[in-house]
Amino acid sequence: MNMPLLSKVTVDSEQAMSIKYNTMVYELKRKGENVIIMSLGEAFFDIPLFPMDTLPMPDLYHYSNSMGLPELREKLSKYFKELFLFDVCPEKEILVTAGSKAAIHMTLMSLINPEEEVLLPEPTWVSYPEQVKLCYGKPVYIPIGTEIEEYQKFVSEKTKAIIICNPNNPIGNVYSEGELSKLLSFAQKNNIWILSDEAYSEFVNNSSFTSLGRLDPLKSNSIIFNSISKNYGISGWRLGYVVANKDVIYNVLKVNQHLITCPATILEYYIVKYFDEILEITRPQIKDVVNKRNELGEYMKKIGLESLEGDATFYFFVSISPSKLSSEEFCTRLLNEYQVSVVPGIGYGESCDKFIRVSIGTASMEENKVGLRLIKELIEKTHH
Amino acid sequence: MNMPLLSKVTVDSEQAMSIKYNTMVYELKRKGENVIIMSLGEAFFDIPLFPMDTLPMPDLYHYSNSMGLPELREKLSKYFKELFLFDVCPEKEILVTAGSKAAIHMTLMSLINPEEEVLLPEPTWVSYPEQVKLCYGKPVYIPIGTEIEEYQKFVSEKTKAIIICNPNNPIGNVYSEGELSKLLSFAQKNNIWILSDEAYSEFVNNSSFTSLGRLDPLKSNSIIFNSISKNYGISGWRLGYVVANKDVIYNVLKVNQHLITCPATILEYYIVKYFDEILEITRPQIKDVVNKRNELGEYMKKIGLESLEGDATFYFFVSISPSKLSSEEFCTRLLNEYQVSVVPGIGYGESCDKFIRVSIGTASMEENKVGLRLIKELIEKTHH
Repeated sequence: MNMPLLSKVTVDSEQAMSIKYNTMVYELKRKGENVIIMSLGEAFFDIPLFPMDTLPMPDLYHYSNSMGLPELREKLSKYFKELFLFDVCPEKEILVTAGSKAAIHMTLMSLINPEEEVLLPEPTWVSYPEQVKLCYGKPVYIPIGTEIEEYQKFVSEKTKAIIICNPNNPIGNVYSEGELSKLLSFAQKNNIWILSDEAYSEFVNNSSFTSLGRLDPLKSNSIIFNSISKNYGISGWRLGYVVANKDVIYNVLKVNQHLITCPATILEYYIVKYFDEILEITRPQIKDVVNKRNELGEYMKKIGLESLEGDATFYFFVSISPSKLSSEEFCTRLLNEYQVSVVPGIGYGESCDKFIRVSIGTASMEENKVGLRLIKELIEKTHH
Repeated sequence: MNMPLLSKVTVDSEQAMSIKYNTMVYELKRKGENVIIMSLGEAFFDIPLFPMDTLPMPDLYHYSNSMGLPELREKLSKYFKELFLFDVCPEKEILVTAGSKAAIHMTLMSLINPEEEVLLPEPTWVSYPEQVKLCYGKPVYIPIGTEIEEYQKFVSEKTKAIIICNPNNPIGNVYSEGELSKLLSFAQKNNIWILSDEAYSEFVNNSSFTSLGRLDPLKSNSIIFNSISKNYGISGWRLGYVVANKDVIYNVLKVNQHLITCPATILEYYIVKYFDEILEITRPQIKDVVNKRNELGEYMKKIGLESLEGDATFYFFVSISPSKLSSEEFCTRLLNEYQVSVVPGIGYGESCDKFIRVSIGTASMEENKVGLRLIKELIEKTHH
């Protein structure tokens, strides 16, 4: 068709690797194939639907505050104080929007000038590099296994920020307080922002999780993202937020006004009303899924599958390195020949092509074990 | 505070003028002031809340298709065929996301390279220029009253698109089929995109509304935006969509995957299920609000207030030109001295500083009349 050109930045942009594989899965399932799904970025919980008709009418239909409902920001501020032990001003230092993904993107827009560089330690979550590029920034990848002490050599005059994911998707580990201190010193020394995506903060095995915000009470360099959708098992409701100093938040507010206005008002009222009930229901289930992860971790050791160390989230970053296949070849064959879906490591950085991301959040224990055995089988079959 | 710099594009960005005034209103109301609100960008309807617990569980909690639920795209495709008389492929030519505002922004990202120019005939909706700037494009304003025949002189080598709002917010008029043909020829001749924001397509007085898409069945140059939130009286639910050719949609899909993923899944299911019932309930109320607008138009003539010609939406673009005040001065005084809130014309372009936007969608007929009389009074009091 004869039409005007599209923008280069979006033509060059890539689909999220995880979404690409999940779309292949949906297509196979529509054809009636029985796929063991270990590729989804969510855990399925059993959560009732509380009544909606007691929420404030007709306000639930209308636009609401572009910072997020004040009552919701109050709740989140208290939640931070209790869990993460630092103060967040509900008036000025928190903004709720349609998912933490949108919050991260709008924050990057608020920080990055064209050509400025953002450090991304690999494995890095699939959307960070694309978001940086869509802001006309430049992703600078730090290969897997690089020590924090070595990050300095990736810094240039153009470096503006670093993004970490803690607890980490896809590894499933958490940063220790010592590591976070080092990262913060690194950011302060270089006068750059540190963005900490803490969407899986509830998915930890014990009380070891430290939010970066606790180490930077003025929030001079730190910006925290968290997700109501993720921690409450309601990923499809698109409710996430950013915590930062008031100057950052004011810039994000302006972007939010022009891009989204507000998340779905009715769902904000719902979360305000049922905040504690939902947490009470999901927390034991979150504990179960993390325990399930760690039981499967033992199983993996037993059958000789290697993954990077961690005991949080519902992910494993599994090594396929004895196999001669690339991670994409591996995942495509695993799906087509064994009907098991996982996500290629290459989606998390070029240094991760000998890994695959395995999510145990949606399949049963038995199915997950079958899936892991089939992964092992394909590795052996494609041995060098 | 000692902190790294923020991005220039967002520091320079302005808050939406309409949101800025509405925030002032909320503050006055909190102080117990009784404000006549004629500034909101929505009409309030009386709509029941249908049951949610019959929607598909647990799917309503999970991520859903980044194109929008297939069933919803089917419904919208039929709606377009019936109402606007053209074909939209539900598989490839429509994408549903968290509001038409987000749809417009993500589409601009998909079209505009940095430095490319976007034509904005004034009055232009408050967020278009900011969205263009956030994409590193350059807004080129066409002053109010310019004939389509004269648009050519605003075209340069860098021109990439033009954005129209039809039915128009803030004027309240619709483009005739003849005008749309001229605009489309203009776009085709210059090989640029034409973006038509049709969020108020239900708010018309008779059957005269033509969607731009009908005149460009291949969608070679035309991109249509529409809003479920707006036309269904549920502005706070953030459900909008873009209709375009498959190449445009594929680029928007990639952006949507990295920015938002999907609108709130539960609300998509809700709209699929109650699509026809809600329209049945809102359509008579939409007719009422449009009739109310036109009755108030007669009243304005009677009291000697002038506004630009139109009979659609719930807006008037009212001339304050006998007053010596700028539109911002006028609105601030109107709010503080008369407790009536409207939006300054300057928010819709520099050529619009002798106008104010008056929305009659939320106040009663009597309150609206009082508001209009007070506007007239302030104009007279501040006469040159």
